[in-house]
Amino acid sequence: MKAARLVEYNQPLKVEEVPEPRITGPYDVILRVGGAGVCRTDLHLIEAVWKDTLHSHLPFTIGHENAGWVEEVGQAVTNVQPGDAVICHPVITCGFCRACRAGNDMHCVNIVFPGLTTDGGYAQYLKTSARSVIKLKSNAQPAEVAPFADAGITAYHAVKKTIPLAFPGSSTVITGIGGLGHIGLQLVHAMTTARSIALDTSDARLQFAHSLGADETVNVSQGDGVQAVQRLTDGGADVVIDFVGTDQTLRESISMLRKGGAYLIVGYGGIMHEPSLDIINREITVMGNLVGTYNDLVELMELYYQGQVKIKSSQYPFDQVNDVLHKLDEGHVEGRAVLVP
Amino acid sequence: MKAARLVEYNQPLKVEEVPEPRITGPYDVILRVGGAGVCRTDLHLIEAVWKDTLHSHLPFTIGHENAGWVEEVGQAVTNVQPGDAVICHPVITCGFCRACRAGNDMHCVNIVFPGLTTDGGYAQYLKTSARSVIKLKSNAQPAEVAPFADAGITAYHAVKKTIPLAFPGSSTVITGIGGLGHIGLQLVHAMTTARSIALDTSDARLQFAHSLGADETVNVSQGDGVQAVQRLTDGGADVVIDFVGTDQTLRESISMLRKGGAYLIVGYGGIMHEPSLDIINREITVMGNLVGTYNDLVELMELYYQGQVKIKSSQYPFDQVNDVLHKLDEGHVEGRAVLVP
Amino acid sequence: MKAARLVEYNQPLKVEEVPEPRITGPYDVILRVGGAGVCRTDLHLIEAVWKDTLHSHLPFTIGHENAGWVEEVGQAVTNVQPGDAVICHPVITCGFCRACRAGNDMHCVNIVFPGLTTDGGYAQYLKTSARSVIKLKSNAQPAEVAPFADAGITAYHAVKKTIPLAFPGSSTVITGIGGLGHIGLQLVHAMTTARSIALDTSDARLQFAHSLGADETVNVSQGDGVQAVQRLTDGGADVVIDFVGTDQTLRESISMLRKGGAYLIVGYGGIMHEPSLDIINREITVMGNLVGTYNDLVELMELYYQGQVKIKSSQYPFDQVNDVLHKLDEGHVEGRAVLVP
Amino acid sequence: MKAARLVEYNQPLKVEEVPEPRITGPYDVILRVGGAGVCRTDLHLIEAVWKDTLHSHLPFTIGHENAGWVEEVGQAVTNVQPGDAVICHPVITCGFCRACRAGNDMHCVNIVFPGLTTDGGYAQYLKTSARSVIKLKSNAQPAEVAPFADAGITAYHAVKKTIPLAFPGSSTVITGIGGLGHIGLQLVHAMTTARSIALDTSDARLQFAHSLGADETVNVSQGDGVQAVQRLTDGGADVVIDFVGTDQTLRESISMLRKGGAYLIVGYGGIMHEPSLDIINREITVMGNLVGTYNDLVELMELYYQGQVKIKSSQYPFDQVNDVLHKLDEGHVEGRAVLVP
Repeated sequence: MKAARLVEYNQPLKVEEVPEPRITGPYDVILRVGGAGVCRTDLHLIEAVWKDTLHSHLPFTIGHENAGWVEEVGQAVTNVQPGDAVICHPVITCGFCRACRAGNDMHCVNIVFPGLTTDGGYAQYLKTSARSVIKLKSNAQPAEVAPFADAGITAYHAVKKTIPLAFPGSSTVITGIGGLGHIGLQLVHAMTTARSIALDTSDARLQFAHSLGADETVNVSQGDGVQAVQRLTDGGADVVIDFVGTDQTLRESISMLRKGGAYLIVGYGGIMHEPSLDIINREITVMGNLVGTYNDLVELMELYYQGQVKIKSSQYPFDQVNDVLHKLDEGHVEGRAVLVP
Repeated sequence: MKAARLVEYNQPLKVEEVPEPRITGPYDVILRVGGAGVCRTDLHLIEAVWKDTLHSHLPFTIGHENAGWVEEVGQAVTNVQPGDAVICHPVITCGFCRACRAGNDMHCVNIVFPGLTTDGGYAQYLKTSARSVIKLKSNAQPAEVAPFADAGITAYHAVKKTIPLAFPGSSTVITGIGGLGHIGLQLVHAMTTARSIALDTSDARLQFAHSLGADETVNVSQGDGVQAVQRLTDGGADVVIDFVGTDQTLRESISMLRKGGAYLIVGYGGIMHEPSLDIINREITVMGNLVGTYNDLVELMELYYQGQVKIKSSQYPFDQVNDVLHKLDEGHVEGRAVLVP
Repeated sequence: MKAARLVEYNQPLKVEEVPEPRITGPYDVILRVGGAGVCRTDLHLIEAVWKDTLHSHLPFTIGHENAGWVEEVGQAVTNVQPGDAVICHPVITCGFCRACRAGNDMHCVNIVFPGLTTDGGYAQYLKTSARSVIKLKSNAQPAEVAPFADAGITAYHAVKKTIPLAFPGSSTVITGIGGLGHIGLQLVHAMTTARSIALDTSDARLQFAHSLGADETVNVSQGDGVQAVQRLTDGGADVVIDFVGTDQTLRESISMLRKGGAYLIVGYGGIMHEPSLDIINREITVMGNLVGTYNDLVELMELYYQGQVKIKSSQYPFDQVNDVLHKLDEGHVEGRAVLVP
Repeated sequence: MKAARLVEYNQPLKVEEVPEPRITGPYDVILRVGGAGVCRTDLHLIEAVWKDTLHSHLPFTIGHENAGWVEEVGQAVTNVQPGDAVICHPVITCGFCRACRAGNDMHCVNIVFPGLTTDGGYAQYLKTSARSVIKLKSNAQPAEVAPFADAGITAYHAVKKTIPLAFPGSSTVITGIGGLGHIGLQLVHAMTTARSIALDTSDARLQFAHSLGADETVNVSQGDGVQAVQRLTDGGADVVIDFVGTDQTLRESISMLRKGGAYLIVGYGGIMHEPSLDIINREITVMGNLVGTYNDLVELMELYYQGQVKIKSSQYPFDQVNDVLHKLDEGHVEGRAVLVP
């Protein structure tokens, strides 16, 4: 089958023929990929940002945001059968460690992450597990919903953490209205009572935020986001969800918060450089966010079926993978790009 | 009356005669100081660390960890009367803002912090408020319990946040077994089911930790704390409570955590310099900590009455204030030093 | 001034002249009543349902759902001034007990409840406290918002408890779409992601529920509510909020729940008669609900200003108080009735 | 193999030869039973208390508190192997439903409960699942720890729910110091900061409670438990955990609580008969409790290894099963009885 593989860091992916994955364990599931979302993490993987963290062996097939149809299942699989349309929870988990038994799939000590630590979904077929598939309702198309498999679940997981922090009269800043952020913004509205303040450097994306119901939008390309947020919130936001994660957003986000506020990091890449005095004096909480739980994705799909969250995406033929990655890097993708094999 | 005042940054405190405080509002309480704890924050105040954060006007009397006897009360005060022995919640709060009405005293938008933003307790008399005093049981001496008023409540507030994160089999690292840390260590035992790991650079303090029941003690003066904790915890601690807060502890504490772990900053002064990738990849939470609530202090006093937490302290005559501060700076104070006017 | 007083149980209120309340303490606030909501609890008071619980001394003025204008304030009051339009938190609290210091106003150990344990708002003037008044924004009219002071805050307090229990795909049953229920229904939509199922015995009230956005409405006058809910929820609701509280709803509500479900009692009067086996086998939680916190009411007012919750009410001249109570008893009040002095 | 089976309600169990269980699914585990605890639920099963709830088909082998050695495993089992000593989580769960994916094993929609809904552990061999076994450390004997498999986990699950309700100065009543209660009492000490008040009708069991560290013990055989608790707690306990569950304890427990208190029902059989007025006026929460999660049992075993919780039990040969059940019914078992095949 065809697959787009990371063969060498800082080089385009190589689209090549590789053997199809095969069932080897009782809970294996082989998926015919219907759509694979293109994520900034794919750029980070190519740029070797994850190299020292993951120690992945090159070459491997990337693509960690996948949906499709069940092609074949292992002996013990009972929750799906061939032909079912499914979306994939992004990681393969053991089901037996403490984290799995508590529902914290993303902390599984035996975690396998297709597209990051093993072959992913930029291919015609993907091997995953019975624990990682969620059946779609009949009206949902894999290529349409694929972005929920990573962008969506990650935004959902982060916004869910803010529910206990939100109250009528509180404010949540959403920084970066891209693939994750445009979903996160809608989830702030659907799941919390906070007022939303969307920050971006692009007027087009802010207009998009406005169309999604943002209570306030601020263009921060002039670097005055902190002042703007403090003015709009009478002293600081209660929550900032940062879908960007550059040195700049890592520095400014904490300054936007009021006493007792929370800063959720979703986008990454930059370095946080923060005086401890400021963290303790205003009693700030900083939370890292990593995908989410299996139930998070089930719940997000339910919001989608209810019409409470929409995806903005554009589909591309599989062969254009390197072009699409380039467009994403240049900031020319609105919402999410999805590869269709 | 005599008071020890910060007249110039980076100079010894000046012990001088100043007018006694007077009742001016209906909820004022004047305290005859029985004991005032000496805190690293006093050093930071003298060193101008807080200068740009607090904008306090010099000169003022420092001392923010106070207990004593009620001398005089405003018209509307009913919860204490002259002669009562009391410990002071460290801040004066309005009682009307959202934070006060939620019990989060330390986030009061009208907060006044005696010893940091107005005259504190390095003096014979201190002015505070009816909302800030807690009557002592008859067997408790002000000079003995004074360290609970800041060191104790801050440690309590931090350890309380770890209760939902602790479970039998989990591990909590306590970094720095000084004035706050030796109370924090005892509270980890009294309030959580976590195993305790005490880190310090001094064998004497680690021996002290051991005598307080620490499950493990590690001398980190060789800089191998991360490896030691990972080995003792099979991959990382669930919680690190950092009572030190230097560049080094800010860097190493996060590395000691397992996936999903929490890092509580209590000591401060250093700069956190942390790649966002590490925070999101292991989904770390970082929590600043600032004193605590009024109820926190009430609860801590209850643990003291029950014999579940002890203070190690030494009392000094008021005139030795600058000597004591020097000893603290040199690391020669065991537990907490308390000035007795 | 005129006041409507409970002079004898099971008799109409007596409208009579009584002395105006006077400022006696530093935090007293005298209110010129703008509107006083009429509540089923008023009927229960007259019927002596509360007699053995409250031991209130007759006669006293009832009316516990009040808003108006500040007429006069005690010496120490700074948060409001004469002329301010305010809504009253329903209880007067000490501000010093553990419950008050934790924000749980309704559990104050020194609680005074105007209209239940002392003179209330069925009068031209009402005495309350600085801790019990919330300034209204200029566009809010006291008589219009008065129902939030008890019906609203109680519904808010209950719905807030269900936030951690709700998730996309979950279901919340709201039983009784009257004065409290019609607010509760809107709050389920505004504050949670649960699907709402409105139960009532009146088609008119169900039509009202439908107009407020109820996802499902069920007429339970035939006694088949349990089956209907189980069918609509594929086995049981996650949450039932019971604004009625008769023997029948107390019996049926638990049967409507799925495993791990929660039953919130708001309306009262009936007796719960439930086998412990059923409570443990499905691990049900039953929660009583009593008004709410000061911040609850602040937050609810914010939702009102944002247009997320509306009150259906009708205003009546003060002299019709006994007629209005009779209408309420007969089930002929839609939403809430408000007396205007 | 030999098994003790419920053949007819209200008759002694029949000890008879039955076929050994066989592996039929990939995740099956066959256990050689090392010890099976004898529980009041066994009496309730025989008395047909559960008949209409469970619809179990007679005859079947009872015994739901089991530990032993792995005899044989299905193809896909990797977490244990033949020869391993294990304790059983009491239920067999699917691993795929929402409850399982959230860690709430006891709410699995496909739950199977050996000893209640299928053959249990009063036999030489027991069939369970890979998801239901926890390996024992080498120093733990199955017959010794078996009571943790139901009595222990249920007490743990209940006490864990009280952690957020407990604070230094709060009080938790433990009613019934039998098989579950004596573990629950120890867990209150190990896991919370509440003061413990043990209630029982037997001086011997209260002496036992005292030896386990109970802060207060009260003999309630004269029916004055409510007054005693109110006196000891200055107005009511914060939490009552009822390990008895008769009409009487269901009635009195709520009366022992202060405002905002919580009543946890663990023992069952009686009927709760409670005015809704009392539940709402003091804003009481009532929580049913059913076994617990897999992680609950892992955590409890950790407390056992740490020496923080001990089991009082006595072992009996398997053939005495009916005698032991009779002794339990008569109140002549101290702690827990365990059958050893």
